[in-house]
Amino acid sequence: MSVAYHANYFIWFEVGRSELLRSLGKTYRNLETTGLYLPVIEARCEFREPARYDDLLDIVTAGSLVSPVRIQFQYDIFRQTDKFHLATGLTVHASINPSGKPFRLPQDIQAVLA
Amino acid sequence: MSVAYHANYFIWFEVGRSELLRSLGKTYRNLETTGLYLPVIEARCEFREPARYDDLLDIVTAGSLVSPVRIQFQYDIFRQTDKFHLATGLTVHASINPSGKPFRLPQDIQAVLA
Amino acid sequence: MSVAYHANYFIWFEVGRSELLRSLGKTYRNLETTGLYLPVIEARCEFREPARYDDLLDIVTAGSLVSPVRIQFQYDIFRQTDKFHLATGLTVHASINPSGKPFRLPQDIQAVLA
Amino acid sequence: MSVAYHANYFIWFEVGRSELLRSLGKTYRNLETTGLYLPVIEARCEFREPARYDDLLDIVTAGSLVSPVRIQFQYDIFRQTDKFHLATGLTVHASINPSGKPFRLPQDIQAVLA
Repeated sequence: MSVAYHANYFIWFEVGRSELLRSLGKTYRNLETTGLYLPVIEARCEFREPARYDDLLDIVTAGSLVSPVRIQFQYDIFRQTDKFHLATGLTVHASINPSGKPFRLPQDIQAVLA
Repeated sequence: MSVAYHANYFIWFEVGRSELLRSLGKTYRNLETTGLYLPVIEARCEFREPARYDDLLDIVTAGSLVSPVRIQFQYDIFRQTDKFHLATGLTVHASINPSGKPFRLPQDIQAVLA
Repeated sequence: MSVAYHANYFIWFEVGRSELLRSLGKTYRNLETTGLYLPVIEARCEFREPARYDDLLDIVTAGSLVSPVRIQFQYDIFRQTDKFHLATGLTVHASINPSGKPFRLPQDIQAVLA
Repeated sequence: MSVAYHANYFIWFEVGRSELLRSLGKTYRNLETTGLYLPVIEARCEFREPARYDDLLDIVTAGSLVSPVRIQFQYDIFRQTDKFHLATGLTVHASINPSGKPFRLPQDIQAVLA
């Protein structure tokens, strides 16, 4: 019970990118209100050392523009106590409208991620 | 609520490899009893089309030996009704003992995965 | 890692009620197509004995009509190998339309659950 | 995708009790080091209003001693923006040793929770 389940890292990545967007003044809910969705089309993680129960973690997230309709986020997870690097990963997201068609990212998001 | 959460695919992958091992007469619990652990050290998924609530899915799993202390599993997820290919992924596992040291996979598992 | 996480039992309960509905010729997706949603408004579980990794489980599910706009499902989880009773639980569901207003359950579902 | 999955509330409850213990100078890991385990033996939640994607939530947690070998935690989840009360729940925990036998809670924890 003391080691974090590997699928959970992808949940932590989501926390990382949500907070990154929030720090840019955007939230997923904002974006969805404007008809923009960012489904995950690819996800990867390399697990270097397990996170354990009660570990406090830092999630360092960076976003970059792959194209006007595609974003990639990179994530690094560190244990707070000793800054040990536990895992690294990425997710790639399509930018689509509610019908699933490609939807150009707004200029302000493109500018920040470029 | 109608689209499966992306982290869940990694849970389905785990179901796939558990059942693959079971079909070979092994279970994780058996292996752990012999002191062999197979933690995930890398995981990837490409999401082609979302699984939706109530979809019945087929998980096709294949395992291959990377080295005497490393296994890779590949997964393909299909929707049962129309055989549509929803996702493809892989996980890489180290074979270790309870102290975390590399542990050579038993010959019978190596033979099957070779 | 060898004991199932307690929140997972509620996922298994969902599998139980989905399959119960499916056996009645209904699926959540069918119901949602007719504008009927069944959100969980209460959930409970008593854990008697832990499920362990690789345990094959039976989920016995029963549904009953609380009112024309409310359903309760009961669940019992058994280990397949020895029929040991691992857990018991329930969920209560409101029947609502997409605006969140009470929506009378269709007569055929009421008849089956009555 | 915009409404939180009901099983997740039990994960948030766990965050609440972990942080409550941490604020008392204890962590699960500390306790387990002393041979004390606190498995969930009962869990309940009433869902009043759904949490939505990107909602920031407050989890208010209180613990009480049921007996020298049993703890109950109560949880209330509020949406930060408007303090709306989204859910209320509880978990009951047995205090056991690694063999699963009842293990009296340490006096300092009993004192705090009494």
